[in-house]
Amino acid sequence: MNTVELIRKKRDGKALTGEEIKYLVLNYTGHQIPDYQFSAFLMAAYLKGLNRKETEYLTHAMLHSGKIINLDSIPGKKVDKHSTGGVGDKTSLILAPIVAAAGVGVPMISGRGLGHTGGTLDKLEAIPGFNIHVSLKEYIGILKKCGAVLAGQTKEIAPADKLIYALRDVTATVESIPLITGSIMSKKLAEGIDALVLDVKTGSGAFMKKYADSVALADSLVNTAIAFKKKVIALITDMNQPLGNYIGNWLEVYESIKVLQGDRCGDLGELSFILAGSMIFLAGKTKTIREGIDIAERLVAGGKAFDKFIEIVTLQGGNIELIKKPGMYPKSKFHETLTAENSGYLQTIDNYRIGMASLELGAGRLTMADKIDPKAGIIFYPKIGDKIKKGSPIAEIFTDKKDKVDPVKKELLSAIKLSATPTVPVKLVRSIISSENCSLN
Amino acid sequence: MNTVELIRKKRDGKALTGEEIKYLVLNYTGHQIPDYQFSAFLMAAYLKGLNRKETEYLTHAMLHSGKIINLDSIPGKKVDKHSTGGVGDKTSLILAPIVAAAGVGVPMISGRGLGHTGGTLDKLEAIPGFNIHVSLKEYIGILKKCGAVLAGQTKEIAPADKLIYALRDVTATVESIPLITGSIMSKKLAEGIDALVLDVKTGSGAFMKKYADSVALADSLVNTAIAFKKKVIALITDMNQPLGNYIGNWLEVYESIKVLQGDRCGDLGELSFILAGSMIFLAGKTKTIREGIDIAERLVAGGKAFDKFIEIVTLQGGNIELIKKPGMYPKSKFHETLTAENSGYLQTIDNYRIGMASLELGAGRLTMADKIDPKAGIIFYPKIGDKIKKGSPIAEIFTDKKDKVDPVKKELLSAIKLSATPTVPVKLVRSIISSENCSLN
Repeated sequence: MNTVELIRKKRDGKALTGEEIKYLVLNYTGHQIPDYQFSAFLMAAYLKGLNRKETEYLTHAMLHSGKIINLDSIPGKKVDKHSTGGVGDKTSLILAPIVAAAGVGVPMISGRGLGHTGGTLDKLEAIPGFNIHVSLKEYIGILKKCGAVLAGQTKEIAPADKLIYALRDVTATVESIPLITGSIMSKKLAEGIDALVLDVKTGSGAFMKKYADSVALADSLVNTAIAFKKKVIALITDMNQPLGNYIGNWLEVYESIKVLQGDRCGDLGELSFILAGSMIFLAGKTKTIREGIDIAERLVAGGKAFDKFIEIVTLQGGNIELIKKPGMYPKSKFHETLTAENSGYLQTIDNYRIGMASLELGAGRLTMADKIDPKAGIIFYPKIGDKIKKGSPIAEIFTDKKDKVDPVKKELLSAIKLSATPTVPVKLVRSIISSENCSLN
Repeated sequence: MNTVELIRKKRDGKALTGEEIKYLVLNYTGHQIPDYQFSAFLMAAYLKGLNRKETEYLTHAMLHSGKIINLDSIPGKKVDKHSTGGVGDKTSLILAPIVAAAGVGVPMISGRGLGHTGGTLDKLEAIPGFNIHVSLKEYIGILKKCGAVLAGQTKEIAPADKLIYALRDVTATVESIPLITGSIMSKKLAEGIDALVLDVKTGSGAFMKKYADSVALADSLVNTAIAFKKKVIALITDMNQPLGNYIGNWLEVYESIKVLQGDRCGDLGELSFILAGSMIFLAGKTKTIREGIDIAERLVAGGKAFDKFIEIVTLQGGNIELIKKPGMYPKSKFHETLTAENSGYLQTIDNYRIGMASLELGAGRLTMADKIDPKAGIIFYPKIGDKIKKGSPIAEIFTDKKDKVDPVKKELLSAIKLSATPTVPVKLVRSIISSENCSLN
């Protein structure tokens, strides 16, 4: 096979075969195809698209560039959740212990935050001592012992994805549905799961801002999961405002503890239970998602979910005292409250800017080399549809960077838009796409 | 400026500014932008296009990546010709001495052959001793002395083009009209010319096989020349059959000598005189192309053009004896005649395959590293529309490679298609696009 001919074929909008895509991915991963040819291929794929079959081939080649974890030694179904990322999205920390407590294995390999979105690994690392760098053996060991494991991507998992993602990042080829699908699914399939719940975000704080794009991505992810014979549910959920109220790494751990201890925390609890219920349902524990949600709610109410969280944190080396008494966590040097300048009904939030403001305070990173301040972040109170009174608190900000306090306050105020007349709250779950016959009702 | 943002802008089909294109080209040439980003940009430019202004900016940036030769010390107009390349196209060797003999400066920087097309430099190097690697000082000196110079691209001329072309070649981004325009025009404008004649080939042996593509390329080249305030004529000429009858480096020098000595050699002489006449016209020596052609024909008939050729070859170190007595040139080990297997009217020639057959015999190269045999090649007799009689000679082949003789014979026969009923000869000049008010009538 000839690399230039394959680039030309994609450039001309023709579909590549499985062998051809495998040739490109494996030779790129093996450093036999140089970056400059693969980036030309990526741009051609971005602009001409990859069809369903090609997306499956791409996922297959990326998956098989590394190891597929064998979890056969662990009895029962293994189910994971993947979110396309957003502002304040900490559901992984909540649902992993709930679903594990329901007797379903949760082998969860997560990523770091970048730009306006947070990452599960950064949140976990806000817990002093929590070790996300576990070996494959430790990974299986922890999963066996407590039913869940929360870790970072190891070298063995889809090495092609690491290389290809780094190249996409610097060649403006990130926002491509088939390329995103290959990246997400190759990693998830490598976990050795039986089923997968996808939380595809849509709105101003999501990667995909337009609803139609989110649906297209969900569709592509679901089709690919089905091609690999995995049960799958994709929920398209709102990201036009932060999920829950806490944004920032430790702040999100704190809010997760609240939910696990029985405080629903509004939309955060609602979505966490829906996702957990979907995972329990996909594992075959219930006949409907609703029954799965019921189990999840009972596990939280009975304290079993929080106990499971303690168990996971313990096994992964994290400081339990701080989980039990989160008030003992170190405090930011600056803690200020932002109040409303006007009265009105909250109409829109530029959620991307909320995420970026949190980053400014120290909670995120612009490049992978940036260091995170786990204490930093925002508690953002109002939700779209809320009535806001002039002078009432809108947000609290936490940072060690004095010079960021005023600009972030200004930024937060300008990111929200009030209306004189009542506004409509957002619908949390916009739609559901699945391999199974299921609904939320 | 941010490279990824510029790639994204082009990827999304937006027009780049002059500053943005300059940033990309100069930083790529200066090794500040890596190959993998520039190749992604090239693919985006290939698929989304560059508009007329962007093409002008690209040409400007590539031109100014190097030196523009200053020919002000040489009196009179300087005019060059550029051909998009084809099979048997040796007009440069014929028109340079004719036009120089007419008192018009011809500063000609040429390229090498690749694939099915020949290159002027390879043809010149078939003349023992002929030095195409002249310094800038020698280049101006030769031009001053005899009115023409035939040389290869120096390092000073549009270095961006060399780098970008090498990258396009391995990333399937060659066949793009704006990128081709930037490549051709940056080199030609660097020659310090006042006017340019373009021979844009169309048909089975051309780079652009479809007439509409050839017109689009001619249009882009003419627009760009006008933007740089150069007088320009583009002729769109047929390449559905070899130009003249001789294909191969020395064979083409030989046929050029024949034309310069007064043998018209059919379409070859016809086109050479039209191109020479157009150059003489553009230099302001005549009021019409026709008058320019008349001058060219007189210069050949009177022997002045051939004398000028001798003068050029002498100044560039070439062996004059062989030009005067071409029969003394070394002979190929194998010289065979191919005869027609059937009778009929010649309907079509797959001219690309004729060029590739010549390459097989040793006359061309597949990669820039391949060595050329200057003796090798084909004399191809029939023209489309000719009546062919079974057993009559169709071609003579010259090669040192015995194993290529039979396959090439077979290939040549299968590349031509005969018809039982009379066929129509091709029209040599299909159309003309110019900055000037001119025609061939």
